[in-house]
Amino acid sequence: MSGYFITFEGGEGAGKTSILHAIYTKLKGEGYDVLTTREPGGIEIAEQIRKIILDPVHIEMEERTEALLYAAARRQHLVEKVLPALKQGKVILCDRFIDSSLAYQGHARGLGIDEVFAINQFAIKDCMPDLTLFFDIDPKKGLDRIAANKDRERNRLDLENIKFHELVHEGYEVLTDRFPERIQTINADQSMEAVEQAAFDCIISHLK
Amino acid sequence: MSGYFITFEGGEGAGKTSILHAIYTKLKGEGYDVLTTREPGGIEIAEQIRKIILDPVHIEMEERTEALLYAAARRQHLVEKVLPALKQGKVILCDRFIDSSLAYQGHARGLGIDEVFAINQFAIKDCMPDLTLFFDIDPKKGLDRIAANKDRERNRLDLENIKFHELVHEGYEVLTDRFPERIQTINADQSMEAVEQAAFDCIISHLK
Repeated sequence: MSGYFITFEGGEGAGKTSILHAIYTKLKGEGYDVLTTREPGGIEIAEQIRKIILDPVHIEMEERTEALLYAAARRQHLVEKVLPALKQGKVILCDRFIDSSLAYQGHARGLGIDEVFAINQFAIKDCMPDLTLFFDIDPKKGLDRIAANKDRERNRLDLENIKFHELVHEGYEVLTDRFPERIQTINADQSMEAVEQAAFDCIISHLK
Repeated sequence: MSGYFITFEGGEGAGKTSILHAIYTKLKGEGYDVLTTREPGGIEIAEQIRKIILDPVHIEMEERTEALLYAAARRQHLVEKVLPALKQGKVILCDRFIDSSLAYQGHARGLGIDEVFAINQFAIKDCMPDLTLFFDIDPKKGLDRIAANKDRERNRLDLENIKFHELVHEGYEVLTDRFPERIQTINADQSMEAVEQAAFDCIISHLK
């Protein structure tokens, strides 16, 4: 594997998706061969799995079933899209990956980080990200940002109460303690330009 | 949980499905409240997952994706069908369960019994079967039985070569060594009546 696999993580309203696209443009400008992606990433099987997860008819979907389906979709996206790009030497910027499952389902939903990690290890084997940026912002402020942005589509998670988002944040803190080498915390409570610059500097220092 | 959860396992042509139905009738005759099932068992979400697994368009389905999808379908079938029946005190006869994944995908496909066990433990937690009958027959004889039965529909696994079926058999042997309390071996290389009687005697001795 000659490429470099970078994941973007954080709670709602941390700005990670906009920053990911800005970083993409900057890295291209620096001459890097870059791919941006997010699960299910247009992979047919993963899209179909996603459809089952999101089908509002499935109110009876059990949370462990859901966690296994996310892991299955992750596996297929990894095999079909991420691994081939890594082989081609690309820098991959992926919007959310294993840590989202660990923080949201493992910690916030209470399934247990270790348990959710076990099924995700089966899914990704030794293909952990080379680098993960955790965009850190107080959950309340993140939600305020979302509320202020009238253009942004609301999703199911935006509607969870503040307590849930605090648990997600706590989950990410547990993960940064557990993977101090891999996960770098970026202070997301700054202007977008400042956050973008901090993220870019962090990535460049790891790529060089 | 006041019910009793029994699973039927074995390679192709061991006769377990016919015997399961015969045992059902016998147990009913003895006054037991019995439910027969098999995954996905008519559970809407599990049926949809199964559809993804079996869709012949999905030639690119990766084997770990498949194993995770089986575990997801298993979870939902367990939660929606098996656990409620156990609560009602029923005796459940389930055609294949966790050991099939361990023998077929873990051992024969080479994913590793421990690894496949880990994701299935996530799926079923502490709801392991109370009793598992392993219908033991030489794989070659099992395949000959299938070949002789013109009415039986051929499935994808029937077409695997003999080496694969020998590996499945070996996988079941590893499992009977690992779970000697739970898994009882029934000699399936006898007349159907004899196999049925042996299975029935084994079940009755555990139910009493």
